[in-house]
Order: sequence, then C-alpha cells, then structure tokens
Amino acid sequence: MNKQELINQIYKKKSFLCVGLDSDLSKIPDHLLTFEDPIFEFNKQIIDATKDLCIAYKINIAFYESNGLKGWNSLMKTIEYIPENIFTIADAKRGDIGNTSEMYARTFFESMNFNSVTVSPYMGSDSVEPFLKFKNKWVILLALTSNKGSLDFQTLIGKNNNELYKEVISVSSKWGDDQNMMYVVGATQAISLLEIRKLIPNHFILVPGVGTQGGSLSDVVKYGINSDCGLLVNSSRSIIYSSSGLDFAKSARLSALKIKLEMEGLLI
Amino acid sequence: MNKQELINQIYKKKSFLCVGLDSDLSKIPDHLLTFEDPIFEFNKQIIDATKDLCIAYKINIAFYESNGLKGWNSLMKTIEYIPENIFTIADAKRGDIGNTSEMYARTFFESMNFNSVTVSPYMGSDSVEPFLKFKNKWVILLALTSNKGSLDFQTLIGKNNNELYKEVISVSSKWGDDQNMMYVVGATQAISLLEIRKLIPNHFILVPGVGTQGGSLSDVVKYGINSDCGLLVNSSRSIIYSSSGLDFAKSARLSALKIKLEMEGLLI
Repeated sequence: MNKQELINQIYKKKSFLCVGLDSDLSKIPDHLLTFEDPIFEFNKQIIDATKDLCIAYKINIAFYESNGLKGWNSLMKTIEYIPENIFTIADAKRGDIGNTSEMYARTFFESMNFNSVTVSPYMGSDSVEPFLKFKNKWVILLALTSNKGSLDFQTLIGKNNNELYKEVISVSSKWGDDQNMMYVVGATQAISLLEIRKLIPNHFILVPGVGTQGGSLSDVVKYGINSDCGLLVNSSRSIIYSSSGLDFAKSARLSALKIKLEMEGLLI
Repeated sequence: MNKQELINQIYKKKSFLCVGLDSDLSKIPDHLLTFEDPIFEFNKQIIDATKDLCIAYKINIAFYESNGLKGWNSLMKTIEYIPENIFTIADAKRGDIGNTSEMYARTFFESMNFNSVTVSPYMGSDSVEPFLKFKNKWVILLALTSNKGSLDFQTLIGKNNNELYKEVISVSSKWGDDQNMMYVVGATQAISLLEIRKLIPNHFILVPGVGTQGGSLSDVVKYGINSDCGLLVNSSRSIIYSSSGLDFAKSARLSALKIKLEMEGLLI
C-alpha cells in the first residue's frame, strides 16, 4: 500500500485507528477454546467487528511465535483474512546484519504479504536498508517507545544536545523517505511529537500506548497531526479484551467505535 | 546451563567456538534438496561433524522464519537434536514492551528450550527483564555489533563522554549479573574489548564476525579474554558453507577444526 492510498482510507473512514491483535490464548474468551484454531477464530471475529472503524491492524508477532507451529498457522490465516485495503503491520521489532535482515524482510513482505514491519534502529543503516528495497512496503522504525525503559537509552543526550531518539530520526530519515518509512512514538510521550514534527513533518507516525498504557488521544493529535493526518494510533488490549464473554466482538466494536468517534472529531 | 558448566565445557574441549547455523535453502548442497526437510538434514550433518569441536551453536532465527511453517519445524528439530551439554543461542535480537518480551522469552526458553537469546537494548530495562526471570537461561544483549551500521548509533558519544554501547553495558549490567547476561561485541571491533573488559570483567562476551565478516581471532583473545575465558567466538558462513559438495560436512569439520586448534593455542 502506498502513502496516498493510506491517506485516502483515513479520510474516507474518518479514522486513524490501528487495532492491535495481541491475541493471547490465556486471555481470549473461554468459549473459543473449542475451535480448532481459537486464536484465528478470535481474530476473525474481531476483524469482522472492527474493519469499518479502523484503517490498520497491527499483529504482535510474539503472541503467535509463542504458540509454535500452531501460532504461525494462526498468523498466516489472520494476515490472509484482513481485507486488502486495510494497512497491515507486523509488529516484530526485527533488525540484524544485512543478510539476516533481508531474510526477515522476505518473511514478512513476501511469505506473509504484510504492508509494513517494525524495526529496531540499534544496528544502524545496513540492518534497515534490506527492508526498504521492497516496493510499497514500509519500515516502521522505533524512535521513542511507550514503555518505562524508553528512558534508559532513547532519551540519552548526545554531544550535540540531541536525545538519542532524535538522532535516530534525523539520521535514519535519510535512508528512505516518507513513502517507505514511518516511526514509532509512544502516546505516553505525546509532547515530544512537537519536536519530532520539526524533524519529520511529512512522515507517518505509529503511536502505540493509547488505552491500557495510558496515553491521551487528544494530546497525540494536538502535537502530532499534520496535513495528511500523519498518525496511526494503535490500541490493542483495551479494544480486543473489552469483554471475555460471548459478546466479546460486539464489545470490541463498541470500544473501537468510541475511539473512532473521538478521532472523527479530531481529524482536521 | 549455568556459567560454571559452560566454563567446564570450554576447558574440557579446549575450545570456545560457537558454530552459527545460518542455514539457507539457497546455499546448502543440492543433493540435500531431495530430503523431506533439507535444512534439518544439513544441520544434523553439520552438528554431527562439529559437536566435539565447539561449545555452542547459534541458530539465526531469521533463516528459519523465512521458510514459514516448514522453517519452524526445521528449527524445532534442530534445537532438539543439539546435545544437551552444548550451549544454545537463539539469535533472534528480540526486545519489546514487558508483556511482549515475556512472550518471546517463553517461546525460546520454554517451547524450544534454548539456553539463551540475543536481545536488543533499545527499549530499555523492562524489555529485557522478562528474559532474566528464567533460571539458568541467558540474555545476550547487543552492545557493539560487527556490521558497518554499528557506527550509526552505537558509537555516538553522550554528554558523559561515553559511547552509547558503553552506556548500554554500564546500565544494563545492573539488570542482571554475569550468571544470566552476556554481551555481543563484534570481532570486527576487537580493540574495543579492552575498554569493555573494564566495565564487565567477568561477563561472557559473544563475538560474531570472525570468518566471512573479517574479524581476527587473535585480536579478540588478546583484548577480550579473562580468567574464565569469557568468550564465545562465533563463525557461521565460513564453517557451514566450506563446501557445497557431497563432502560439505567433512569440509565444515575441517574449517571448525582449524579454528578450534587456533583457540587451543590461545586459551590461557
């Protein structure tokens, strides 16, 4: 999916919501456990219930890997089930030396046809570039994450008085452009979007951390929106685990709708 | 495996060689392609041919993931095939928010029974700690990697005049200890081991980059050895792809033996 197609979706649906499929066997409703593939059944129902409200699904690969072969099966079925006009994110946080990153890129972009993959910047340019070689595919690079540990290294101040995450953005934004790179900035650190927008006015930013992690949607928009919207705001647990009963999908829809309506009011 | 058991293996075998199983369908000998699981057959023969010469196997997860379900199958069979007294490394470079890192930890430590997993430090303490909760399991944290891109961020100098990778080592070494943490330092940057040893005199260091990537074994030992040896030196492609003929396993053995004999001479 290219940038214009993503923007079109956002304005058509009046939503920039990304639903995170952190689907965990120990948390999905009990009545699904009798299905042959409970995780896929859960995802299927969540997707059916939310696909008109969101413009992206983010699949947290760890939750699938932890179920071994069965998990990979659920993952493959899920990615195939997502409608083609919805943006897909493999939240995998990969990144390795060149020949290895190339393998990861093939896995997510070719074998599974994801639109994007999250990548860690620590290993530098040649760990990211193999992902940028695929047409209409995206790298979503970690910049400032939503967790407490983001303060350990990401905000370290360098000799040029820049925090590390700003250095990461400045340097890496030259490896690709706003047509094939996005950045992760946690909603819990929304104020920093003000400074980040000076560095990357046109890039899309994936913002996790609204919901369970406590970030504020209005702050994210206030500091981060640009003329293309430029934001994908993710919520996972607070949507998909709204209810653990038979009504889980309906309940997930209501949680997603609530965010979607707030987004509608905030979209310029 | 605990630290003492690892040290015992090193002095018993007079080797600190780690063989990297970066097993790639497009590079393994043609005659293996008729097997039901060519990658596992390749690994099996490489393991049989090298297990008395090395003390660890590092499995590069990307190469298995890229083959989808078949790949995971080969991976599971390979990890089960490795003798229990040989240290195993899931070279996965994972790291995510707490609940997600916990999933990755379970995948590699429980479902697959690896002894260790490589982790990226970018997301900080709470992305690493879930891995440290498992008894006799190890985090191998990226510090200074062997690739060109390591110079993009890892060597940035902070306000306290420390390079980022040193800051990573100083801060993170307090999250665990030398019984559950190791660090990755590329052989291509061997001289830096001198400074690193001042920060972590007792930790094991995993050193990739000898062989195809051009690092020197004698430099690694000169600057990085400690009284427990404290080094796991990895070579992947230059061992496993020594020959693409029927004699590939014998040839891999000879390449491994050459390094092992050099190590024997260098071990204090």
